[in-house]
Amino acid sequence: MNYSSKGHELWHTPDGVRDIYGSELELRQKTLEKLKKDLFLFGYDEILVPSIEYFDVFSGETGTIPSRELYKFFDRDNNTLVLRPDFTPSVARCVAKYYTDITDPIRICYNGSAFVNRSSLLGLPREVFELGAEFFNDGSAYADAEMIALLVTQLKNAGLERFEISVGNAEYFRGLCEEAGLDNSEELSLRELLSGKNYYAAESFLKELGFDKTKRDPFMRISSILQNEEELEKVLGETESERCRSALSRLIEVSRILKAYEADSYVSFDLSLLSRYGYYTGIIFKGYTYGVGDAIASGGRYDLLLSHFGKNSPAVGYMIQMDLLLEALSRQAGAEDKAPAGNISYFTDEDFASKLKEAGERRAAGERTILQWKH
Amino acid sequence: MNYSSKGHELWHTPDGVRDIYGSELELRQKTLEKLKKDLFLFGYDEILVPSIEYFDVFSGETGTIPSRELYKFFDRDNNTLVLRPDFTPSVARCVAKYYTDITDPIRICYNGSAFVNRSSLLGLPREVFELGAEFFNDGSAYADAEMIALLVTQLKNAGLERFEISVGNAEYFRGLCEEAGLDNSEELSLRELLSGKNYYAAESFLKELGFDKTKRDPFMRISSILQNEEELEKVLGETESERCRSALSRLIEVSRILKAYEADSYVSFDLSLLSRYGYYTGIIFKGYTYGVGDAIASGGRYDLLLSHFGKNSPAVGYMIQMDLLLEALSRQAGAEDKAPAGNISYFTDEDFASKLKEAGERRAAGERTILQWKH
Repeated sequence: MNYSSKGHELWHTPDGVRDIYGSELELRQKTLEKLKKDLFLFGYDEILVPSIEYFDVFSGETGTIPSRELYKFFDRDNNTLVLRPDFTPSVARCVAKYYTDITDPIRICYNGSAFVNRSSLLGLPREVFELGAEFFNDGSAYADAEMIALLVTQLKNAGLERFEISVGNAEYFRGLCEEAGLDNSEELSLRELLSGKNYYAAESFLKELGFDKTKRDPFMRISSILQNEEELEKVLGETESERCRSALSRLIEVSRILKAYEADSYVSFDLSLLSRYGYYTGIIFKGYTYGVGDAIASGGRYDLLLSHFGKNSPAVGYMIQMDLLLEALSRQAGAEDKAPAGNISYFTDEDFASKLKEAGERRAAGERTILQWKH
Repeated sequence: MNYSSKGHELWHTPDGVRDIYGSELELRQKTLEKLKKDLFLFGYDEILVPSIEYFDVFSGETGTIPSRELYKFFDRDNNTLVLRPDFTPSVARCVAKYYTDITDPIRICYNGSAFVNRSSLLGLPREVFELGAEFFNDGSAYADAEMIALLVTQLKNAGLERFEISVGNAEYFRGLCEEAGLDNSEELSLRELLSGKNYYAAESFLKELGFDKTKRDPFMRISSILQNEEELEKVLGETESERCRSALSRLIEVSRILKAYEADSYVSFDLSLLSRYGYYTGIIFKGYTYGVGDAIASGGRYDLLLSHFGKNSPAVGYMIQMDLLLEALSRQAGAEDKAPAGNISYFTDEDFASKLKEAGERRAAGERTILQWKH
């Protein structure tokens, strides 16, 4: 390749963003339509939030992205603005603003780009397309289960063949820490190690705290995957902490409802599922599929977030990482179908009028028709 | 309203951006679908360009927005990045990159947000939604006419009842200036005055240059609206400059083709139509409708732009300002239909299974159904 001319230099997109076109865009648009249809059918109302927000919306306890990874700039009054790194805080802001005094259940969905100013070393994307749903004012296990069932419905209807939703409860780990008498900073360190699945370091950390095997075991055991209600019941029988028991009971309830949704075969339980930011207050879930390393979907209950925006409301939600889902779908499909090129009808100055008439009729019948001058 | 609590402060969106939801979003989505359908039927392939580009893509001769109105920031290698203020340079970059050696006609379309960091004094939006089409590698009057006819088709199918496309030719004004012997800076000043429709100041400016009435008249006459081919022919008969005559002949040709498209009743000609940035090299057009001050659509031929990206290709395109089109559509419709809330099916713990089955059947039939726990 020749980068010497000015023209060729201008071809580049910045690191972490790219052009999408052809059959890749075709698959993206079709998949988006399918995902949106299920959100509509389940009664979720779409909202379009701005790409630019005040920094404060994403800072401190409402943020899920470290400040150094935000795209920041200033407006003319010297306020700090950011490109939204995440939709949940924006949607929470909207619900607090437009549904201030509403206590009835509120179902909201969204889709669009989010921006994360990552280091270029990892080669990760900086503009990512996300689609999600949020369910407010309903703290029940039915609300938890509706979200997981909706996600399963969406992934199935999008054509994803092999996937699994892993479900945990943020309260279970907190219960274990409480029972073991860990302070906040110890809890945070252990959370980091366990959420990174570094069990060896986690065990060493607990040994350093002077914990014997009996005291370490509950932490080390949380990594086992539980397939169903019965296995959850068994752990419940062995658990003493009230906080842990209540977390387990909630998962059992969710599991029962998911059976009614016929979604249970896609779901397993993982008590070690933790979010790095301690943002969630109840169930946590992640969707995985064959051949894509990272989770294609993630969500959970966050009953405290809205209070930062001046409204008290339980909330549960999730988002799908479109780029990862599309990667999975296109791997699975093997060779991609190309986008249909449509009919090309060539005309000359002489037969233009008749060819135009014909093209008009085809287009009216929904048939893609390119009319092209042949000179 | 009480802004004293932290929550309420966080409700605000920055100046110039906003949340869109409810029946406004409903109209927007439906209109977008209609506009996209016509682009598909005419054979335009969609492309998704990144929101973030290198500053150079929009600077100098390829830019249409002054640098001070760009949202600028730096990446970690200290390159200047911008939020795209406009799609055409990005699409031109893509065509130069992905269709480098292709000389066959290329039809591309896009839609998305563009960002302009305007002064807050005017209260204008800073994130605007644009939809557009670009046609490369065809320098013919048929290509010019196809763009105008496609725009007319889109506006009609979107449900817009009263609109007019005003068509000019950038070469006509250049021909007049050449004939009168104006230098570049005089041409630029006059362009500013005439594109701002400030005819009084334009006449004074020409008087200061020592132009008598005979020499001023061609400039002052360009503001008259010409309704059809016959009126264009009449001006052609009175014009001596070769450059002006050739510009008029092209408009006559476009007018004839638009008659075949049955689009001529929506079109009039305005030789005073000028673009502030001198970006266009042939036809220029703008779409106006009742009750919206600014043009809802604008476009033209820009045969030199692609050479900045290392490809030589004639090009013609336009974009629709979605926010202005939607403003026109919602004024015209009067009272808006509300988005359908869907059926709400309340369930208890006892009848959950049967209500879930019923909801599943309704959703499968395409009926929006909210399933809600009643406790």
